[in-house]
Amino acid sequence: MLRKENLKIGNYCIYQDTDFFLYGTDAVVLSDFIQLKKNDIVVEFGTGNLIIPILLWAKGKKFKKLYALEIQKEVCELAILNRNINNLQDRIEVINADLKDALKIFGSEFANVVFTNPPYRKVNSGTINPNIKKAIARHEIMCTIEDVIRSAMQILKFGGRFYMVYRSDRLTDALYYLRLYKLEPSLIRFVHQNKEKESSLVLIEAKKGKQCSLKVDKPLFIDEMEYYLEKQNGSEDEKR
Amino acid sequence: MLRKENLKIGNYCIYQDTDFFLYGTDAVVLSDFIQLKKNDIVVEFGTGNLIIPILLWAKGKKFKKLYALEIQKEVCELAILNRNINNLQDRIEVINADLKDALKIFGSEFANVVFTNPPYRKVNSGTINPNIKKAIARHEIMCTIEDVIRSAMQILKFGGRFYMVYRSDRLTDALYYLRLYKLEPSLIRFVHQNKEKESSLVLIEAKKGKQCSLKVDKPLFIDEMEYYLEKQNGSEDEKR
Repeated sequence: MLRKENLKIGNYCIYQDTDFFLYGTDAVVLSDFIQLKKNDIVVEFGTGNLIIPILLWAKGKKFKKLYALEIQKEVCELAILNRNINNLQDRIEVINADLKDALKIFGSEFANVVFTNPPYRKVNSGTINPNIKKAIARHEIMCTIEDVIRSAMQILKFGGRFYMVYRSDRLTDALYYLRLYKLEPSLIRFVHQNKEKESSLVLIEAKKGKQCSLKVDKPLFIDEMEYYLEKQNGSEDEKR
Repeated sequence: MLRKENLKIGNYCIYQDTDFFLYGTDAVVLSDFIQLKKNDIVVEFGTGNLIIPILLWAKGKKFKKLYALEIQKEVCELAILNRNINNLQDRIEVINADLKDALKIFGSEFANVVFTNPPYRKVNSGTINPNIKKAIARHEIMCTIEDVIRSAMQILKFGGRFYMVYRSDRLTDALYYLRLYKLEPSLIRFVHQNKEKESSLVLIEAKKGKQCSLKVDKPLFIDEMEYYLEKQNGSEDEKR
Protein backbone atom coordinates (compact mmCIF):
# COMPACT_ATOMS: atom_id res chain seq x y z
CA MET A 1 0.00 0.00 0.00
CA LEU A 2 1.36 3.38 -0.99
CA ARG A 3 1.30 6.09 1.65
CA LYS A 4 2.49 9.67 1.43
CA GLU A 5 4.50 11.26 4.20
CA ASN A 6 5.38 14.91 4.65
CA LEU A 7 9.05 15.20 5.70
CA LYS A 8 8.31 18.43 7.65
CA ILE A 9 11.35 20.10 6.10
CA GLY A 10 10.25 22.64 3.49
CA ASN A 11 7.68 21.05 1.20
CA TYR A 12 9.53 17.80 0.73
CA CYS A 13 7.56 14.59 0.90
CA ILE A 14 7.97 10.90 0.20
CA TYR A 15 5.81 8.01 -0.90
CA GLN A 16 6.43 4.77 0.95
CA ASP A 17 5.08 1.40 -0.06
CA THR A 18 4.24 -0.67 2.99
CA ASP A 19 5.07 -3.79 0.96
CA PHE A 20 8.67 -2.54 0.69
CA PHE A 21 11.19 -1.70 3.36
CA LEU A 22 10.18 1.47 5.25
CA TYR A 23 12.75 3.99 6.31
CA GLY A 24 13.58 4.51 9.96
CA THR A 25 15.99 6.12 12.39
CA ASP A 26 18.96 4.79 10.42
CA ALA A 27 18.12 6.87 7.32
CA VAL A 28 17.50 9.97 9.43
CA VAL A 29 20.74 9.80 11.42
CA LEU A 30 22.80 8.96 8.33
CA SER A 31 21.43 11.98 6.45
CA ASP A 32 22.49 14.16 9.40
CA PHE A 33 25.96 12.59 9.51
CA ILE A 34 26.91 12.86 5.81
CA GLN A 35 28.93 15.96 4.89
CA LEU A 36 28.69 17.20 1.31
CA LYS A 37 30.17 19.99 -0.80
CA LYS A 38 28.14 21.60 -3.56
CA ASN A 39 30.38 20.26 -6.33
CA ASP A 40 30.41 16.69 -5.08
CA ILE A 41 29.61 13.79 -7.37
CA VAL A 42 27.81 11.37 -5.09
CA VAL A 43 26.79 7.73 -5.42
CA GLU A 44 24.38 5.90 -3.15
CA PHE A 45 24.34 2.10 -2.96
CA GLY A 46 20.83 0.76 -2.39
CA THR A 47 18.66 3.84 -2.28
CA GLY A 48 15.31 2.18 -1.58
CA ASN A 49 12.60 4.84 -1.95
CA LEU A 50 15.26 7.60 -2.26
CA ILE A 51 14.68 8.78 1.29
CA ILE A 52 18.31 9.68 2.10
CA PRO A 53 19.02 11.79 -1.02
CA ILE A 54 15.76 13.68 -0.45
CA LEU A 55 16.54 14.25 3.23
CA LEU A 56 20.05 15.45 2.32
CA TRP A 57 18.73 17.97 -0.20
CA ALA A 58 15.91 19.09 2.09
CA LYS A 59 18.44 19.70 4.88
CA GLY A 60 20.50 21.96 2.62
CA LYS A 61 23.28 19.43 1.94
CA LYS A 62 23.74 20.22 -1.72
CA PHE A 63 25.59 18.19 -4.33
CA LYS A 64 26.33 18.52 -8.04
CA LYS A 65 24.92 15.17 -9.06
CA LEU A 66 23.76 12.11 -7.20
CA TYR A 67 23.50 8.62 -8.69
CA ALA A 68 21.21 6.37 -6.69
CA LEU A 69 21.61 2.64 -7.34
CA GLU A 70 18.80 0.26 -6.51
CA ILE A 71 18.76 -3.42 -7.48
CA GLN A 72 14.98 -3.93 -7.19
CA LYS A 73 13.10 -2.68 -10.26
CA GLU A 74 9.82 -1.93 -8.53
CA VAL A 75 11.59 -0.07 -5.71
CA CYS A 76 13.41 1.96 -8.38
CA GLU A 77 10.08 3.07 -9.80
CA LEU A 78 9.08 4.38 -6.40
CA ALA A 79 12.44 6.18 -6.10
CA ILE A 80 11.80 7.87 -9.46
CA LEU A 81 8.30 8.91 -8.38
CA ASN A 82 9.77 10.44 -5.21
CA ARG A 83 12.48 12.22 -7.17
CA ASN A 84 9.93 13.72 -9.53
CA ILE A 85 7.40 14.92 -6.97
CA ASN A 86 10.29 16.70 -5.19
CA ASN A 87 11.55 18.24 -8.47
CA LEU A 88 15.05 16.74 -8.26
CA GLN A 89 15.16 15.42 -11.84
CA ASP A 90 18.21 17.54 -12.77
CA ARG A 91 20.18 16.51 -9.67
CA ILE A 92 19.41 12.86 -9.14
CA GLU A 93 19.67 9.89 -11.44
CA VAL A 94 18.08 6.64 -10.28
CA ILE A 95 19.78 3.58 -11.75
CA ASN A 96 18.33 0.08 -11.60
CA ALA A 97 21.57 -1.82 -11.04
CA ASP A 98 23.55 -4.04 -8.72
CA LEU A 99 26.09 -2.12 -6.60
CA LYS A 100 28.60 -4.89 -7.40
CA ASP A 101 28.60 -3.49 -10.97
CA ALA A 102 29.47 0.05 -9.84
CA LEU A 103 32.97 -0.07 -11.35
CA LYS A 104 31.54 -1.16 -14.74
CA ILE A 105 28.88 1.57 -14.61
CA PHE A 106 30.98 4.51 -13.40
CA GLY A 107 34.65 3.59 -13.87
CA SER A 108 37.33 4.17 -11.27
CA GLU A 109 38.03 7.52 -9.54
CA PHE A 110 34.49 8.65 -10.35
CA ALA A 111 32.91 9.80 -7.08
CA ASN A 112 33.78 12.28 -4.35
CA VAL A 113 31.36 10.56 -1.99
CA VAL A 114 29.74 7.14 -1.71
CA PHE A 115 27.17 6.48 0.98
CA THR A 116 24.99 3.55 1.92
CA ASN A 117 22.55 2.13 4.41
CA PRO A 118 23.29 -1.49 3.52
CA PRO A 119 21.54 -4.67 4.67
CA TYR A 120 22.55 -5.26 8.27
CA ARG A 121 22.10 -8.94 8.83
CA LYS A 122 24.06 -11.97 7.72
CA VAL A 123 21.96 -14.49 5.84
CA ASN A 124 22.45 -17.03 8.63
CA SER A 125 21.21 -14.68 11.37
CA GLY A 126 17.67 -13.70 12.35
CA THR A 127 14.40 -14.64 10.70
CA ILE A 128 14.35 -13.80 7.00
CA ASN A 129 11.24 -11.83 6.04
CA PRO A 130 8.97 -13.89 3.73
CA ASN A 131 8.43 -10.67 1.75
CA ILE A 132 11.49 -10.85 -0.52
CA LYS A 133 11.58 -7.07 -1.09
CA LYS A 134 11.95 -6.47 2.63
CA ALA A 135 14.31 -9.41 3.06
CA ILE A 136 16.71 -7.98 0.45
CA ALA A 137 16.86 -4.67 2.31
CA ARG A 138 17.58 -6.34 5.66
CA HIS A 139 19.65 -9.43 4.95
CA GLU A 140 22.83 -9.88 2.93
CA ILE A 141 20.97 -11.72 0.18
CA MET A 142 22.13 -9.67 -2.82
CA CYS A 143 25.42 -8.34 -1.38
CA THR A 144 27.67 -8.66 1.66
CA ILE A 145 29.35 -5.86 3.59
CA GLU A 146 32.58 -6.82 1.80
CA ASP A 147 30.89 -6.30 -1.61
CA VAL A 148 29.65 -2.88 -0.51
CA ILE A 149 33.04 -1.71 0.74
CA ARG A 150 34.97 -3.12 -2.25
CA SER A 151 32.62 -1.43 -4.73
CA ALA A 152 32.82 1.88 -2.87
CA MET A 153 36.62 1.77 -2.91
CA GLN A 154 36.63 1.02 -6.64
CA ILE A 155 34.65 4.09 -7.71
CA LEU A 156 35.89 6.64 -5.15
CA LYS A 157 38.54 9.20 -6.01
CA PHE A 158 41.68 9.24 -3.86
CA GLY A 159 40.73 11.06 -0.64
CA GLY A 160 37.03 10.58 -1.41
CA ARG A 161 34.65 9.96 1.47
CA PHE A 162 32.58 6.90 2.29
CA TYR A 163 29.64 7.10 4.70
CA MET A 164 27.58 4.30 6.14
CA VAL A 165 25.16 3.47 8.93
CA TYR A 166 25.40 -0.03 10.31
CA ARG A 167 24.34 -2.17 13.25
CA SER A 168 26.80 -1.69 16.10
CA ASP A 169 27.05 -5.43 16.66
CA ARG A 170 28.74 -5.66 13.25
CA LEU A 171 31.32 -2.93 13.91
CA THR A 172 34.24 -5.36 13.62
CA ASP A 173 33.10 -6.49 10.16
CA ALA A 174 32.82 -2.90 8.99
CA LEU A 175 36.20 -1.75 10.31
CA TYR A 176 37.97 -4.92 9.23
CA TYR A 177 36.85 -4.62 5.59
CA LEU A 178 37.36 -0.84 5.50
CA ARG A 179 40.99 -1.32 6.55
CA LEU A 180 41.40 -4.26 4.14
CA TYR A 181 40.14 -2.15 1.21
CA LYS A 182 42.12 0.98 2.17
CA LEU A 183 39.14 3.07 3.17
CA GLU A 184 40.52 4.42 6.43
CA PRO A 185 37.91 5.24 9.10
CA SER A 186 38.15 8.92 10.07
CA LEU A 187 34.99 9.51 12.13
CA ILE A 188 32.70 7.17 14.03
CA ARG A 189 29.61 8.02 16.03
CA PHE A 190 27.57 5.58 18.09
CA VAL A 191 23.80 5.90 18.36
CA HIS A 192 22.09 4.89 21.62
CA GLN A 193 18.39 5.08 22.51
CA ASN A 194 19.44 6.85 25.71
CA LYS A 195 22.55 7.08 27.87
CA GLU A 196 21.78 3.90 29.80
CA LYS A 197 21.39 1.74 26.69
CA GLU A 198 23.93 -0.09 24.60
CA SER A 199 24.48 1.19 21.07
CA SER A 200 22.18 -0.08 18.33
CA LEU A 201 23.60 1.79 15.33
CA VAL A 202 26.97 3.19 14.30
CA LEU A 203 27.75 5.94 11.79
CA ILE A 204 31.06 5.65 9.97
CA GLU A 205 33.02 8.02 7.74
CA ALA A 206 36.12 6.70 5.95
CA LYS A 207 38.56 8.23 3.45
CA LYS A 208 40.04 6.42 0.49
CA GLY A 209 43.79 5.90 0.73
CA LYS A 210 44.30 8.55 3.41
CA GLN A 211 46.32 8.07 6.57
CA CYS A 212 43.98 9.66 9.07
CA SER A 213 43.46 9.75 12.78
CA LEU A 214 40.17 8.26 13.88
CA LYS A 215 37.83 10.43 15.92
CA VAL A 216 35.16 8.65 17.98
CA ASP A 217 32.60 11.42 18.37
CA LYS A 218 30.38 12.10 21.37
CA PRO A 219 27.52 9.60 21.48
CA LEU A 220 24.17 10.39 19.88
CA PHE A 221 21.17 9.77 22.14
CA ILE A 222 17.92 9.32 20.25
CA ASP A 223 15.79 10.39 23.22
CA GLU A 224 17.48 13.81 23.26
CA MET A 225 16.46 14.52 19.66
CA GLU A 226 12.86 15.68 19.30
CA TYR A 227 12.89 15.22 15.56
CA TYR A 228 13.62 11.53 15.82
CA LEU A 229 11.13 10.59 18.47
CA GLU A 230 8.36 10.84 15.96
CA LYS A 231 10.18 8.53 13.56
CA GLN A 232 10.57 5.99 16.33
CA ASN A 233 6.82 5.62 16.51
CA GLY A 234 6.68 4.04 13.08
CA SER A 235 5.70 0.48 12.34
CA GLU A 236 7.69 -2.60 13.19
CA ASP A 237 9.01 -2.52 9.65
CA GLU A 238 11.31 0.29 10.62
CA LYS A 239 13.12 -1.90 13.08
CA ARG A 240 15.65 -4.39 11.89
CA MET B 1 61.55 9.51 43.12
CA LEU B 2 59.54 6.82 44.84
CA ARG B 3 56.17 7.86 46.25
CA LYS B 4 53.62 5.76 48.12
CA GLU B 5 49.94 6.01 47.36
CA ASN B 6 47.04 4.56 49.31
CA LEU B 7 44.53 3.02 46.88
CA LYS B 8 41.63 3.75 49.26
CA ILE B 9 40.29 0.23 48.80
CA GLY B 10 40.96 -1.82 51.93
CA ASN B 11 44.57 -1.37 52.97
CA TYR B 12 46.03 -1.74 49.50
CA CYS B 13 48.75 0.68 48.45
CA ILE B 14 51.25 1.16 45.67
CA TYR B 15 54.69 2.65 45.24
CA GLN B 16 55.16 4.68 42.09
CA ASP B 17 58.48 5.91 40.77
CA THR B 18 58.09 9.33 39.16
CA ASP B 19 60.95 8.39 36.80
CA PHE B 20 58.77 5.60 35.39
CA PHE B 21 55.36 5.71 33.76
CA LEU B 22 52.66 6.63 36.31
CA TYR B 23 49.29 4.97 36.22
CA GLY B 24 46.19 6.92 35.26
CA THR B 25 42.54 6.66 34.29
CA ASP B 26 43.31 3.89 31.81
CA ALA B 27 44.47 1.46 34.53
CA VAL B 28 41.49 2.32 36.72
CA VAL B 29 38.84 1.84 34.03
CA LEU B 30 40.47 -1.36 32.74
CA SER B 31 40.49 -2.89 36.23
CA ASP B 32 36.75 -2.15 36.46
CA PHE B 33 36.09 -3.65 33.03
CA ILE B 34 37.93 -6.97 33.41
CA GLN B 35 35.76 -9.92 34.52
CA LEU B 36 37.49 -12.77 36.35
CA LYS B 37 36.54 -16.11 37.85
CA LYS B 38 38.27 -17.41 40.95
CA ASN B 39 39.93 -20.32 39.12
CA ASP B 40 41.25 -18.23 36.24
CA ILE B 41 44.88 -18.41 35.18
CA VAL B 42 45.63 -14.86 34.12
CA VAL B 43 48.52 -13.25 32.23
CA GLU B 44 49.19 -9.54 31.99
CA PHE B 45 51.40 -8.10 29.25
CA GLY B 46 53.39 -5.09 30.47
CA THR B 47 52.41 -4.75 34.10
CA GLY B 48 54.45 -1.65 34.96
CA ASN B 49 54.28 -1.17 38.73
CA LEU B 50 51.64 -3.94 39.03
CA ILE B 51 48.83 -1.42 39.50
CA ILE B 52 46.14 -3.34 37.58
CA PRO B 53 46.60 -6.73 39.32
CA ILE B 54 46.54 -4.99 42.70
CA LEU B 55 43.41 -2.99 41.79
CA LEU B 56 41.73 -6.20 40.54
CA TRP B 57 42.46 -8.05 43.78
CA ALA B 58 41.52 -5.05 45.94
CA LYS B 59 38.18 -4.81 44.11
CA GLY B 60 37.39 -8.45 44.87
CA LYS B 61 38.13 -9.77 41.38
CA LYS B 62 39.87 -12.95 42.45
CA PHE B 63 42.00 -15.27 40.33
CA LYS B 64 43.89 -18.50 40.90
CA LYS B 65 47.24 -17.25 39.62
CA LEU B 66 48.37 -14.15 37.77
CA TYR B 67 51.59 -13.91 35.77
CA ALA B 68 52.66 -10.31 35.21
CA LEU B 69 55.17 -9.77 32.38
CA GLU B 70 57.32 -6.65 32.33
CA ILE B 71 60.20 -6.09 29.93
CA GLN B 72 61.99 -3.42 31.98
CA LYS B 73 64.09 -4.89 34.78
CA GLU B 74 63.95 -1.90 37.11
CA VAL B 75 60.19 -1.59 36.66
CA CYS B 76 59.91 -5.29 37.52
CA GLU B 77 61.66 -4.68 40.83
CA LEU B 78 59.06 -2.07 41.70
CA ALA B 79 56.28 -4.49 40.71
CA ILE B 80 57.77 -7.10 43.08
CA LEU B 81 57.97 -4.53 45.90
CA ASN B 82 54.31 -3.67 45.35
CA ARG B 83 53.30 -7.33 45.26
CA ASN B 84 55.10 -7.97 48.54
CA ILE B 85 53.79 -4.99 50.52
CA ASN B 86 50.27 -6.10 49.50
CA ASN B 87 50.93 -9.72 50.51
CA LEU B 88 50.14 -11.19 47.09
CA GLN B 89 53.25 -13.40 46.84
CA ASP B 90 51.22 -16.62 46.56
CA ARG B 91 48.93 -15.25 43.84
CA ILE B 92 51.13 -13.17 41.60
CA GLU B 93 54.35 -13.98 39.80
CA VAL B 94 56.25 -11.10 38.25
CA ILE B 95 58.31 -12.14 35.24
CA ASN B 96 60.98 -9.98 33.63
CA ALA B 97 60.32 -10.89 30.00
CA ASP B 98 59.26 -9.70 26.60
CA LEU B 99 55.57 -10.35 25.85
CA LYS B 100 56.65 -11.53 22.38
CA ASP B 101 58.16 -14.57 24.18
CA ALA B 102 54.89 -15.47 25.90
CA LEU B 103 54.40 -18.64 23.86
CA LYS B 104 57.92 -19.86 24.76
CA ILE B 105 57.37 -19.06 28.45
CA PHE B 106 53.86 -20.45 28.91
CA GLY B 107 53.10 -22.71 25.93
CA SER B 108 49.83 -22.66 24.02
CA GLU B 109 46.36 -22.99 25.59
CA PHE B 110 47.77 -21.79 28.92
CA ALA B 111 45.63 -18.87 30.08
CA ASN B 112 41.95 -18.26 30.69
CA VAL B 113 42.50 -14.53 30.53
CA VAL B 114 45.12 -12.18 29.06
CA PHE B 115 44.88 -8.45 29.69
CA THR B 116 47.00 -5.47 28.80
CA ASN B 117 47.31 -1.71 28.84
CA PRO B 118 49.77 -1.60 25.93
CA PRO B 119 51.72 1.35 24.54
CA TYR B 120 49.23 3.55 22.68
CA ARG B 121 51.30 5.45 20.18
CA LYS B 122 52.99 4.47 16.96
CA VAL B 123 56.70 5.24 16.92
CA ASN B 124 56.16 7.80 14.16
CA SER B 125 53.48 9.73 16.07
CA GLY B 126 53.81 12.26 18.88
CA THR B 127 56.92 13.40 20.72
CA ILE B 128 58.87 10.48 22.16
CA ASN B 129 59.70 10.99 25.83
CA PRO B 130 63.49 11.42 26.34
CA ASN B 131 63.09 9.24 29.46
CA ILE B 132 63.33 5.81 27.81
CA LYS B 133 61.38 4.08 30.61
CA LYS B 134 58.40 6.33 30.00
CA ALA B 135 58.86 6.19 26.23
CA ILE B 136 58.64 2.36 26.25
CA ALA B 137 55.34 2.50 28.14
CA ARG B 138 53.82 5.04 25.73
CA HIS B 139 55.24 4.31 22.29
CA GLU B 140 55.43 1.07 20.31
CA ILE B 141 59.19 0.84 20.81
CA MET B 142 59.42 -2.71 22.18
CA CYS B 143 56.20 -4.11 20.67
CA THR B 144 53.38 -3.18 18.30
CA ILE B 145 49.66 -3.77 18.78
CA GLU B 146 49.99 -6.67 16.36
CA ASP B 147 52.67 -8.28 18.59
CA VAL B 148 50.42 -7.88 21.63
CA ILE B 149 47.38 -9.44 19.97
CA ARG B 150 49.34 -12.28 18.34
CA SER B 151 51.01 -13.21 21.64
CA ALA B 152 47.69 -13.10 23.49
CA MET B 153 46.09 -15.40 20.92
CA GLN B 154 49.00 -17.85 21.19
CA ILE B 155 48.74 -18.45 24.94
CA LEU B 156 44.95 -18.21 25.40
CA LYS B 157 42.79 -21.31 25.70
CA PHE B 158 39.94 -21.69 23.18
CA GLY B 159 37.15 -19.41 24.40
CA GLY B 160 39.59 -17.55 26.67
CA ARG B 161 39.13 -13.82 27.17
CA PHE B 162 41.36 -10.95 26.15
CA TYR B 163 40.96 -7.49 27.69
CA MET B 164 42.62 -4.26 26.71
CA VAL B 165 42.34 -0.51 27.10
CA TYR B 166 43.45 1.53 24.12
CA ARG B 167 43.28 5.00 22.63
CA SER B 168 40.01 5.40 20.74
CA ASP B 169 41.80 6.91 17.75
CA ARG B 170 43.45 3.50 17.22
CA LEU B 171 40.21 1.50 17.34
CA THR B 172 40.58 0.34 13.73
CA ASP B 173 44.06 -1.09 14.43
CA ALA B 174 42.77 -2.98 17.45
CA LEU B 175 39.69 -4.46 15.76
CA TYR B 176 41.55 -5.25 12.56
CA TYR B 177 44.25 -7.28 14.30
CA LEU B 178 41.80 -8.92 16.71
CA ARG B 179 39.79 -10.21 13.75
CA LEU B 180 42.96 -11.20 11.90
CA TYR B 181 44.18 -13.27 14.88
CA LYS B 182 40.79 -14.83 15.62
CA LEU B 183 40.18 -13.00 18.88
CA GLU B 184 36.59 -11.96 18.22
CA PRO B 185 35.50 -8.72 19.94
CA SER B 186 32.53 -9.41 22.23
CA LEU B 187 32.22 -6.22 24.28
CA ILE B 188 33.40 -2.66 23.68
CA ARG B 189 32.94 0.37 25.90
CA PHE B 190 33.96 3.91 25.03
CA VAL B 191 35.26 6.28 27.69
CA HIS B 192 34.49 10.01 27.38
CA GLN B 193 35.43 12.82 29.77
CA ASN B 194 31.77 13.89 29.64
CA LYS B 195 28.83 13.48 27.29
CA GLU B 196 29.83 16.40 25.09
CA LYS B 197 33.38 15.14 24.47
CA GLU B 198 34.72 12.71 21.92
CA SER B 199 36.03 9.40 23.26
CA SER B 200 39.63 9.25 24.45
CA LEU B 201 39.84 5.60 25.52
CA VAL B 202 38.18 2.35 24.54
CA LEU B 203 37.82 -0.85 26.56
CA ILE B 204 37.71 -4.07 24.56
CA GLU B 205 36.88 -7.68 25.47
CA ALA B 206 37.50 -10.41 22.87
CA LYS B 207 37.13 -14.18 22.91
CA LYS B 208 39.52 -16.61 21.28
CA GLY B 209 38.00 -18.54 18.38
CA LYS B 210 34.41 -17.81 19.37
CA GLN B 211 31.71 -16.62 17.02
CA CYS B 212 30.14 -13.92 19.14
CA SER B 213 27.88 -10.97 18.73
CA LEU B 214 29.52 -7.67 19.59
CA LYS B 215 27.89 -5.52 22.24
CA VAL B 216 28.80 -1.81 22.27
CA ASP B 217 28.01 -0.91 25.86
CA LYS B 218 26.59 2.37 27.15
CA PRO B 219 29.30 5.02 27.22
CA LEU B 220 31.37 5.62 30.34
CA PHE B 221 31.58 9.29 31.37
CA ILE B 222 34.54 10.05 33.62
CA ASP B 223 32.89 13.12 35.13
CA GLU B 224 30.04 10.98 36.46
CA MET B 225 32.41 8.73 38.44
CA GLU B 226 33.55 10.24 41.73
CA TYR B 227 36.26 7.68 42.22
CA TYR B 228 38.03 8.61 39.01
CA LEU B 229 37.98 12.36 39.36
CA GLU B 230 40.69 12.16 41.92
CA LYS B 231 42.88 10.11 39.58
CA GLN B 232 42.40 12.71 36.90
CA ASN B 233 44.19 15.25 39.03
CA GLY B 234 47.48 13.42 38.66
CA SER B 235 50.54 14.76 36.91
CA GLU B 236 50.93 15.21 33.17
CA ASP B 237 52.63 11.82 33.16
CA GLU B 238 49.27 10.19 33.43
CA LYS B 239 48.20 11.60 30.09
CA ARG B 240 49.43 10.00 26.91
